Amino acid sequence: MALTLIIGNKNYSSWSMRPWLAMTAAGIPFEEEVVWLDTPEFSARLAGISPAGRVPVLIDGDAVVWETLAILEHLAERFPDSGLWPQEKVARAHARAQAAEMHAGFTGLRRDAPMNLWRPVEPLALSERGMKDLADITKGWRTARERFGAGGDFLFGAFSAADAMYAPVASRIRTYALPVDPVSAAYVEAIHAHPAFRAWHDAALKETRTVEADEVDWPVVKRV
Amino acid sequence: MALTLIIGNKNYSSWSMRPWLAMTAAGIPFEEEVVWLDTPEFSARLAGISPAGRVPVLIDGDAVVWETLAILEHLAERFPDSGLWPQEKVARAHARAQAAEMHAGFTGLRRDAPMNLWRPVEPLALSERGMKDLADITKGWRTARERFGAGGDFLFGAFSAADAMYAPVASRIRTYALPVDPVSAAYVEAIHAHPAFRAWHDAALKETRTVEADEVDWPVVKRV
Repeated sequence: MALTLIIGNKNYSSWSMRPWLAMTAAGIPFEEEVVWLDTPEFSARLAGISPAGRVPVLIDGDAVVWETLAILEHLAERFPDSGLWPQEKVARAHARAQAAEMHAGFTGLRRDAPMNLWRPVEPLALSERGMKDLADITKGWRTARERFGAGGDFLFGAFSAADAMYAPVASRIRTYALPVDPVSAAYVEAIHAHPAFRAWHDAALKETRTVEADEVDWPVVKRV
Repeated sequence: MALTLIIGNKNYSSWSMRPWLAMTAAGIPFEEEVVWLDTPEFSARLAGISPAGRVPVLIDGDAVVWETLAILEHLAERFPDSGLWPQEKVARAHARAQAAEMHAGFTGLRRDAPMNLWRPVEPLALSERGMKDLADITKGWRTARERFGAGGDFLFGAFSAADAMYAPVASRIRTYALPVDPVSAAYVEAIHAHPAFRAWHDAALKETRTVEADEVDWPVVKRV
């Protein structure tokens, strides 16, 4: 049975981007269903399947998974050979913790610098909390690259679910011209060069829908 | 090799409680190491093993897992027969999403009503956000109990990692005398009656350490 991933606007929805990238990079076949953020259709479609009324949602037969990290674990279990998590045990434990940290934290950076693939590159001054988040995130990247990154350009060598979790941060670093160390800058480049990221990015640039509401949980901004 | 779970004060550290309950309920052997919140020893012990400087942390040989949800997934993979997640696929997918939602959200309730097992029961008026969180959480509980709860008193029948994630909420509901529907009230009772919860609770009542700082990420309050 085909998997369906329900996502929001590709320009804005950093949470939707994460499992989409993970599945695309891992070669897991799925159908995408786009529901436009901040529309009546959005609420109608998600009623009953996403308690929080948010995207992404994975539909896998009778199984409905409405949280990003749970989607990744569900897929890793269902497709054990997909390489969603690193194969080696210590690396996998590290990757899981790093991904969970992104799932629950770094709200300062997320608030300061919403993902917006349309936005022309222009520097942004982060708040103190945003700067601390950026420092913590890039420190985590350097640690992973140093300890587990041999054999590839990503946090654990080959592209994994942990990279999918941090890809929107890489996008923000570029969009807002945020200053980072050379290891992190190279990692941001690697994310942008990945075919799955490029495919998402190109699709986002073809969207025309804007979002102006700020009631939704993730930060959204007007089209610049 | 023995597993070690590093935790904070049992009275306050709701995040520490979660994997401790899950492991205890599942019969997974481990050693606990208590580091007192808001002490120099705390920072010293966690430096280098928890990037965010937080508990809980699971040490499993060379693997170091510093995020609650990652700890649960690490254990579920390492002990596949432990029943940490529900066995049936649809229930397991639902449990994962529900647990991830707790991991990343409900910050209104968490801020309003910090876990404090010492506190005498006394009603608390929640903020609007706190009330919405409580309504959303208990709605999720009712859905799980109705769809998957047959065969036990917990969200998915037998006690699972999802119950471990929500146990601190059950504790808050009792401590702050928060009004909930009958299904949720019965669930709160079931959590309090579970041997693992009682063991944690009894140990918390023997602690004498207080925490007054509010720099830590989880809300802490003075000893009442």
